[in-house]
Amino acid sequence: MAAYIEPKVLKGFRDFLPDAEITRRSLIENIENTCRSFGFVPIDTPAMEYAEILLGKSGGETEKQIFRFKDNGERDVALRFDLTVPFARFVALHRADIVFPFKRYHIGKAWRGENTQRGRYREFIQCDFDIIGSDTPASDFEIILLIRTVFKNLGVDVNINVNHRGLFNRFLEHIKQSEKSVEILRTVDKLSKVGEDKTRESLTELTGETNARKILEFIGAKGSFTEVLERITELSGGDCAQAQRLASLREYMRGACEDSDSEPFVLNPSITRGLDYYTGVVFETFLKEMPDIGSVCSGGRYDNLAGLYSKEKDSISGVGTSVGLDRLLAALESLNKMPSVNRCKTAIACVEGEKSGQYHALALKLRKEGIPCEVFTDPCGEKNLVKQFVLAEKKGCSYVIIPGDDSSAVTLRDLAARQNIDTNISDLIEKLKEKI
Amino acid sequence: MAAYIEPKVLKGFRDFLPDAEITRRSLIENIENTCRSFGFVPIDTPAMEYAEILLGKSGGETEKQIFRFKDNGERDVALRFDLTVPFARFVALHRADIVFPFKRYHIGKAWRGENTQRGRYREFIQCDFDIIGSDTPASDFEIILLIRTVFKNLGVDVNINVNHRGLFNRFLEHIKQSEKSVEILRTVDKLSKVGEDKTRESLTELTGETNARKILEFIGAKGSFTEVLERITELSGGDCAQAQRLASLREYMRGACEDSDSEPFVLNPSITRGLDYYTGVVFETFLKEMPDIGSVCSGGRYDNLAGLYSKEKDSISGVGTSVGLDRLLAALESLNKMPSVNRCKTAIACVEGEKSGQYHALALKLRKEGIPCEVFTDPCGEKNLVKQFVLAEKKGCSYVIIPGDDSSAVTLRDLAARQNIDTNISDLIEKLKEKI
Repeated sequence: MAAYIEPKVLKGFRDFLPDAEITRRSLIENIENTCRSFGFVPIDTPAMEYAEILLGKSGGETEKQIFRFKDNGERDVALRFDLTVPFARFVALHRADIVFPFKRYHIGKAWRGENTQRGRYREFIQCDFDIIGSDTPASDFEIILLIRTVFKNLGVDVNINVNHRGLFNRFLEHIKQSEKSVEILRTVDKLSKVGEDKTRESLTELTGETNARKILEFIGAKGSFTEVLERITELSGGDCAQAQRLASLREYMRGACEDSDSEPFVLNPSITRGLDYYTGVVFETFLKEMPDIGSVCSGGRYDNLAGLYSKEKDSISGVGTSVGLDRLLAALESLNKMPSVNRCKTAIACVEGEKSGQYHALALKLRKEGIPCEVFTDPCGEKNLVKQFVLAEKKGCSYVIIPGDDSSAVTLRDLAARQNIDTNISDLIEKLKEKI
Repeated sequence: MAAYIEPKVLKGFRDFLPDAEITRRSLIENIENTCRSFGFVPIDTPAMEYAEILLGKSGGETEKQIFRFKDNGERDVALRFDLTVPFARFVALHRADIVFPFKRYHIGKAWRGENTQRGRYREFIQCDFDIIGSDTPASDFEIILLIRTVFKNLGVDVNINVNHRGLFNRFLEHIKQSEKSVEILRTVDKLSKVGEDKTRESLTELTGETNARKILEFIGAKGSFTEVLERITELSGGDCAQAQRLASLREYMRGACEDSDSEPFVLNPSITRGLDYYTGVVFETFLKEMPDIGSVCSGGRYDNLAGLYSKEKDSISGVGTSVGLDRLLAALESLNKMPSVNRCKTAIACVEGEKSGQYHALALKLRKEGIPCEVFTDPCGEKNLVKQFVLAEKKGCSYVIIPGDDSSAVTLRDLAARQNIDTNISDLIEKLKEKI
């Protein structure tokens, strides 16, 4: 046996101590409850898959970042680096057992051997929700509404920026720049990082001055949803299916939302989601109080999700999004808007070690009434109660119950007020229910 | 791009479709709530660690089963194969930030490249709870009581079998067979599998006829907790600390539990937990209705948890257990005692596609009242309602709301009764609250 092994975690990996873990779980639970209330159902897939499956569509970047190895049976395997690729494989494999339109969410860990600078981790939790098997504006809208509700239920205001990738492509066709669309998209995508001047320069180099001006006019269109939609429709050569889809979103938005917040999302033609696989509506979500941290929830519509893993000809279109949990957690922390957590606030002091059985009987009674409570198991020597009060405070408790000599009398210690209240068990339960 | 990749999962790994995943999550949530009500707090550790850390104390068997590889930085890493080893490393690393006694639970995936026969999986969820930093009978008792409450809250009756590993060792000393303790433990551990005759044979070969008889007398002691305790104390040479600890457990049990179930756990001297690292109290848990599937929750007290990763001299003793989630799920399924799940039971039909906004407004109203509901996004052609009823049934809904022409009139379709009820929105909310 080794004498000593230094305890350490791998770079980019993290331990979660109780406070951090409770918060993270509360956040996840909150998001999950919202998804459930919309009728979305959870799935799970393995952390590890055949490397061939995970790498199927990906380029060299992913291959460099993925944790890939040979298992004991010499299979070429890898850890999932997102939840989208496994979902595509899942849908192809279980197509016959899925009821479409399929509204699913999936919350789970994923791994990337990324550079760990700038708050990126090698192990992180992804939180995805998608509707697949329905290529309707109503599905696009539902995902946007779900994003909005997720953040509303977390108590934070967001700006959801929407665009239609297909309309941008149509515009590029209209100005005869389609063959350069990849480079143009890449340039436009950097706008918020490098600024307008630099973007104009790059675009001029790429497409000439006139086209650069037109592109900037398109992506810079400002105003109400309707105004922007009219402007970019005109710039793309007039009415079309893509513009009509955006118009439907606006109508649904008006129908679904109360007057007070009639524009919960804006049309922002500069949102393109770079070189992602989106083909239709795309969106990014910014916290109103902290827009600078970037999008906390991005997504869009994609075609033929399971195509790579499917022999069937009819493709499955979908729309979905992914919440950046780490970024969101950091933001909520600095905004002091962490989700409230249901912590155990009450401890039962150990007056005499031999009476632990009775203390547990009392605890079981409280728990039956919905009051979580911890039982201390050590009388802590002579000055026992003071030490136990300190321990309770360290554990985040607000109250300590000191059992009395006879079975019904108890004293309730309010730790913050430093007050003792003599009471009996039934009054105690009422008091704690009020306080917690 | 590859034209087609066969969608498949690795041997021993599993996809969870919505029904299975909802059930599994409900089970986990139920267990988690019980842990929380006892004041236990969650932690998390990385799925991947330095192989040296994970393999520290383990023998060759683990090394053969573990998923181990070189990461992109040539580090020798592995996937965790349980939650105990990472917990030991965690405690050593964060000792200064932990409030002792530390009551933690940890629910997470672990991986082993095991033979996948007999319902064993290569990816599985572990569910551990432990109290560390308190070597008291009260902590031993609390873990046993927590096990009991976990299963009570799941609606299943269990027999918790308790023993003291140290008392067995003392007995072996008393009959002067200590140096053969490893072989004896290994033989005794197989008793339930091979039967008493075969065990007697092996023990006789190992220790002679007289000792074999004594060992079988010890592990075969039957009766009430008190009777068994008296018998095995006598066989071990009289009263001792280990016997006193078991006596304390009995006292606590009497104090904590109502008369109706005054013996929620039994003293079973044949429980030894084989060659595990336990040093004190050990326990195994059997479902009363399905004892044959084996222990669904085993554990015990161990010494010096973090010793291998710690330079500090004072060791940390702990007591804890692990719930076998896969085995438990299978058992609950065949007992028809799956935890109840809070599924979405209501769908809003899509009468006219353009009105999706209003349908979502209605859905938001229902969700505010605590009624989860899904909005259908496609009118499904001409005979639309019938198709949507079928879809709703497939999705597990009981009710479909058919929005009327004006904004307050609605029809509620009871799918099981095949009945339509005309109503208005406020009555609808009351009706659904009653029914769900």
